[in-house]
Amino acid sequence: MLQEAVYHRPKGNFAYAYDAETLHIRLRTKKEDCSAVTILWGDPFSWEKNENDVWEWHRDQSVSMKKEKSTSLFDYWFGEIKTETKRVKYAFQLEQKNETAIYTEKGFFVDLNTRTNNSFFTFPYLNEEDVFSAPSWVKDTVWYQIFPERFGNGDESINPKGALPWGSAEPKPNNFFGGDLKGIMDHLDHLVELGITGLYLTPIFKAYSNHKYDTIDYMEIDPQFGDKETFKKFVDTCHKKGIKVMLDAVFNHSGFYFPPFQDVLKNGEKSRYKNWFYIKDFPVKTKPKPNYATFAFTEEMPKLNTSNAELREYLLEVGRYWVREFNIDGWRLDVANEVSHDFWREFRKEVRAIKSDVYILGEIWHDAMPWLQGDQFDAVMNYPYTSGAIDFFAKQEITAEEFVNQTVETLVMYPKNVMEAAFNLLGSHDTPRILTTCEGNKEKVKQLFTFLLSAPGTPCIYYGDEIGMSGDMDPGCRKCMEWAEEKQDRELLQYITKLIALRRDNGVFGNDGELDFIQYSNTTNHVMYTKTNGDDTLLFVFNNSSEAISITKPHSLKGKKLLPVIDTNMKLDEKELKLAGHEVLIVAVV
Amino acid sequence: MLQEAVYHRPKGNFAYAYDAETLHIRLRTKKEDCSAVTILWGDPFSWEKNENDVWEWHRDQSVSMKKEKSTSLFDYWFGEIKTETKRVKYAFQLEQKNETAIYTEKGFFVDLNTRTNNSFFTFPYLNEEDVFSAPSWVKDTVWYQIFPERFGNGDESINPKGALPWGSAEPKPNNFFGGDLKGIMDHLDHLVELGITGLYLTPIFKAYSNHKYDTIDYMEIDPQFGDKETFKKFVDTCHKKGIKVMLDAVFNHSGFYFPPFQDVLKNGEKSRYKNWFYIKDFPVKTKPKPNYATFAFTEEMPKLNTSNAELREYLLEVGRYWVREFNIDGWRLDVANEVSHDFWREFRKEVRAIKSDVYILGEIWHDAMPWLQGDQFDAVMNYPYTSGAIDFFAKQEITAEEFVNQTVETLVMYPKNVMEAAFNLLGSHDTPRILTTCEGNKEKVKQLFTFLLSAPGTPCIYYGDEIGMSGDMDPGCRKCMEWAEEKQDRELLQYITKLIALRRDNGVFGNDGELDFIQYSNTTNHVMYTKTNGDDTLLFVFNNSSEAISITKPHSLKGKKLLPVIDTNMKLDEKELKLAGHEVLIVAVV
Repeated sequence: MLQEAVYHRPKGNFAYAYDAETLHIRLRTKKEDCSAVTILWGDPFSWEKNENDVWEWHRDQSVSMKKEKSTSLFDYWFGEIKTETKRVKYAFQLEQKNETAIYTEKGFFVDLNTRTNNSFFTFPYLNEEDVFSAPSWVKDTVWYQIFPERFGNGDESINPKGALPWGSAEPKPNNFFGGDLKGIMDHLDHLVELGITGLYLTPIFKAYSNHKYDTIDYMEIDPQFGDKETFKKFVDTCHKKGIKVMLDAVFNHSGFYFPPFQDVLKNGEKSRYKNWFYIKDFPVKTKPKPNYATFAFTEEMPKLNTSNAELREYLLEVGRYWVREFNIDGWRLDVANEVSHDFWREFRKEVRAIKSDVYILGEIWHDAMPWLQGDQFDAVMNYPYTSGAIDFFAKQEITAEEFVNQTVETLVMYPKNVMEAAFNLLGSHDTPRILTTCEGNKEKVKQLFTFLLSAPGTPCIYYGDEIGMSGDMDPGCRKCMEWAEEKQDRELLQYITKLIALRRDNGVFGNDGELDFIQYSNTTNHVMYTKTNGDDTLLFVFNNSSEAISITKPHSLKGKKLLPVIDTNMKLDEKELKLAGHEVLIVAVV
Repeated sequence: MLQEAVYHRPKGNFAYAYDAETLHIRLRTKKEDCSAVTILWGDPFSWEKNENDVWEWHRDQSVSMKKEKSTSLFDYWFGEIKTETKRVKYAFQLEQKNETAIYTEKGFFVDLNTRTNNSFFTFPYLNEEDVFSAPSWVKDTVWYQIFPERFGNGDESINPKGALPWGSAEPKPNNFFGGDLKGIMDHLDHLVELGITGLYLTPIFKAYSNHKYDTIDYMEIDPQFGDKETFKKFVDTCHKKGIKVMLDAVFNHSGFYFPPFQDVLKNGEKSRYKNWFYIKDFPVKTKPKPNYATFAFTEEMPKLNTSNAELREYLLEVGRYWVREFNIDGWRLDVANEVSHDFWREFRKEVRAIKSDVYILGEIWHDAMPWLQGDQFDAVMNYPYTSGAIDFFAKQEITAEEFVNQTVETLVMYPKNVMEAAFNLLGSHDTPRILTTCEGNKEKVKQLFTFLLSAPGTPCIYYGDEIGMSGDMDPGCRKCMEWAEEKQDRELLQYITKLIALRRDNGVFGNDGELDFIQYSNTTNHVMYTKTNGDDTLLFVFNNSSEAISITKPHSLKGKKLLPVIDTNMKLDEKELKLAGHEVLIVAVV
């Protein structure tokens, strides 16, 4: 047994409360190293006197673990414990052909004895207050991200100065086209038809730039987008159409023209706001290098000092205000990983006290386990989950095996209840558009949307991707939404609309199905996974080469019938599946 | 390279802020698998355009890692990053004879390229609010634990009914001897002479039993111990003698006679306190099994529902009250692992707002990383650190190699700043006394105290262990303190007093020295470690067999002089060190 490969540590993704009665336990072992793993467990206080009148811990429970997922290096095992007393002590019994070992907090033991028992892992209590709990509505949400300056111009009277006619020019860091809240409202039917149930707007508060990430006033709607009355109507209208509304706030830094920062620039050490920022020395200077902490190296974006009580209260009130007064449903938090955990914990409490099912989404691009323990965020922008798929399908930079490995690692990276609320996306205002990354190959885009929409978590579509808009890294990805139907890729739109409908109507397509890779090959360059829930199984087959391929159905499908879920000309009852270049096949297995 | 053995995950003990400018990074590899490991790092926002006009991340920093510690399975590598911008992206370059690999958040890469760069680990920002910060005084504290019923009877007038003459009987679960606060005050000089600077009292609040863990009134001193006036004087007197005072509180459950619980028993569903507990159904019953959540399976100890706002405020006020009104220095929290993280976070904030350098110690017997992130506890009862030593020296149950492995694992289990404030102990009111575990062998006891007092963290001595008191598992370990000098083991007392003085006067003995095992053998059954800080080195050699042994000095000591730190008859300038059975040698290496 390769002991070095075995890993487990309680709390986090390896042992967590799924709910107040259920503990999920995972174990990592070397790939194909163990034939079986059993969780041995009991209540930590089940002590009994043995025949020698000595108190001994009496453990009487066990659970067989299921091999949940595998990568090239590891097997991941999964088990569930239901506990009435809410307290669990546990260890793992690992089996190989000729070897059994007990794995505990203090390492390996050859058998069960008093020392082994004293070394068991502990999950001391499943306190309901600590259970990760994203709002229940999130699991079924399909998000749509809008960059408000570029979605629709519904009210030309509030156009910013120098606004260009809609779509008349390429997007630039500093040009404007007059997109506004009314423009979004005018087009809500497009979203309803697509099947969208959640809207994520990048910032709409008063700011200087077209992206509005350089906030001037957190308590005001930018006049180029509308006013508070319009926004109230906006939220109400969305709600009536079954669409939740999430706003974007930047609490890591302010804009340069945020009055408190201007006050510090003007009054220096005498400013009452000097401790709202991290000023290293006075007088404050912006050039040649700012002498205050900034976002990135941008002197225009001074970092906010969230340990300052006055600023903290100001920001918390921002969080509360828009929920309380406008009934928004979620907060997306910009550069969330650079703000203190301490601030986010308070933010969650304050905002949830106003509305208990607000969704809190942090912008974090990397492994975010420390922010997803139940006390801070409900989700993060789950770029790691899709980046393997983009590298594989779009960029052709990695092999099928590498794609499977990376996807599996990101599936087990978080607890299952975290993964169910994850915010998955193929692109945003911060990345090239997916069609552009795919170098214009629409078949690849379909594959990626199939992957996105059949994943656990909640998918988010970046405005215009569904109609085949192109665009490179910002500012290219921020073009005006194309509303002329003849310029929209209606066939792609139809495909994505169908996927969303499938996800909505068929639990196993989305969060209720467990995703398992059942076949892949670096040679033919294809992958195959199933989504399963009890007797319901969907099969997804992806050809990642530009050539037609013919692949043998896996043994596990023998004797099963394949029924198309999306129209296909393929013959499904033959031994081989013949896929065209970059084709994707979705079938039900019955 | 054995990729399966390589482990790292940011936050926790593998990557943490040591202070607001310093990041500590650890990596685990298979033992003796890598010849060198380097941290490659840079600021996440150091992007530059390359020759093809494409933005690329420009990483320009690197740090060689030191092999920090080793076990039979693993090497642990350590590196320190000082960062002005407080933001770090990093990966590990692992070297073997014929192989180099880059280890990232997304696994292994063979070289540095754009995908590798995009896969680096992230430590997004070192926010000072999140840095673990135990009070600075704790690092140098030597604790002494007192069970107040059994330390000294200073005021017979407040003896509980039926109190027995001091030491006249064996301790039983339900007998009393009249120990009180005055009795402790009368004997403070004993503690001062011993070198104690912190006192931990098991509960003194009004309760039914002799151990007082079954609280009746959290706001009152138990009348058998004294009153509030006495306690005020007690704290003041301790402070004048340079001794901090830590009280013990039970927030996981109340005593049976806690009036709110009695109210629930009496009034059932009509009780205003019914939600202070977890009552499953009404009427409330205690037999045959309680229909409410309890500590362990004890119907006398109903679990408190810390998610109830009213109860929570009551408990928080307890936390604040004794700090505010009596100026206590620390809280030891009973069964802390079964109370919600959420409660402890608020508890820390509330208590620290009254007095910023209060020490918060949780009773947790297992790996407690989730409670030691800076937001909850400053320390836990660090049983795992000493349990290997007890199994080795006292019980002779494990080999030298197993002892080294377990001790090393517990040294790297927490961040270094957590380890410096750890609460290490050889025993408590919940374990057999150390002399009894050593079956009366005083030499073993000396070895264990040498190990305890030369460890990182803060040591705690259970009352009476320093004078060789014996006693089995509770209630045996709760005898009356022996004050007759002729019945005290004065030689043991002198030895421990000397160790404490060494720790106080010689930083390298305590927290300023890094502990490294430099030799061990299962055959001769001995271990050897050094404590080092720059040029200062102390050597500790332990013979764990009952026979005399002769061991060759390790190569690293060649040409060095050994100077006794504690008197010894041993010849130190010879090639061999000759140790008597269970002897311990402490020398300075110069």
